[in-house]
Amino acid sequence: MRVVIVYDISDDGKRFKVARVLEQWGLARIQRSAFTGYLQVARVRDLARKLEAMIDFDSDVIHIIPVQPQDWARVIVLGKPYWVAGRVEGAHVLS
Amino acid sequence: MRVVIVYDISDDGKRFKVARVLEQWGLARIQRSAFTGYLQVARVRDLARKLEAMIDFDSDVIHIIPVQPQDWARVIVLGKPYWVAGRVEGAHVLS
Repeated sequence: MRVVIVYDISDDGKRFKVARVLEQWGLARIQRSAFTGYLQVARVRDLARKLEAMIDFDSDVIHIIPVQPQDWARVIVLGKPYWVAGRVEGAHVLS
Repeated sequence: MRVVIVYDISDDGKRFKVARVLEQWGLARIQRSAFTGYLQVARVRDLARKLEAMIDFDSDVIHIIPVQPQDWARVIVLGKPYWVAGRVEGAHVLS
C-alpha cells in the first residue's frame, strides 16, 4: 500500500534519525518532513512501532496516511519538490 | 473530498499566512505544517491557485493529497496530535 508519512518532531537529532529510517525503508522524500512510498501492510505496522519508539510523545507527532494509487495520481504539487522530480512518481503540478 | 495538505515553507510570514488561509477554509490542523478536511473538487482547485500565489517557488513546496474516507479511518497517529483529539476525527492511535 502507498503511504504518506508526515512528521512534526522538535528535536533535531530525533528528526534526522526518523528521516534516516524512512530513507532506509525505501521511502522517497517529498518535503523536509514528509515521505511517501509503498509498503506491505505488515511492514507499515512494523515501521509504526519503530517510529513510535523514537519520538517524544509530549511534543512530537507522526501521521502515517494510506493513499490509493489513483489518489496519489491526483496529488497537486505546488512549488519545488524536495527531491528530484523522478522520485516523486505519480505527482503532477496543477496546470 | 477529503484532502491532506502538507507544506514546507521557509519564510515565517508566508507560512503563517498559508496556515491562516487553511484555517479560514475550514480545514483542521493536524500538525504545525499539515491540515486536513473536506472540500468540493472545484474548491480544491481554487485553494491550490490561491496557495500557489502565496509561496516562493524556489524554496517552498505544498502537497495537496486526496484521501479516501476509508483510508483516513486507517490513519496511524503516533505521538501528540497538534489539535484537540476531537478535531482529528477518524484518526486513531496504533494499539
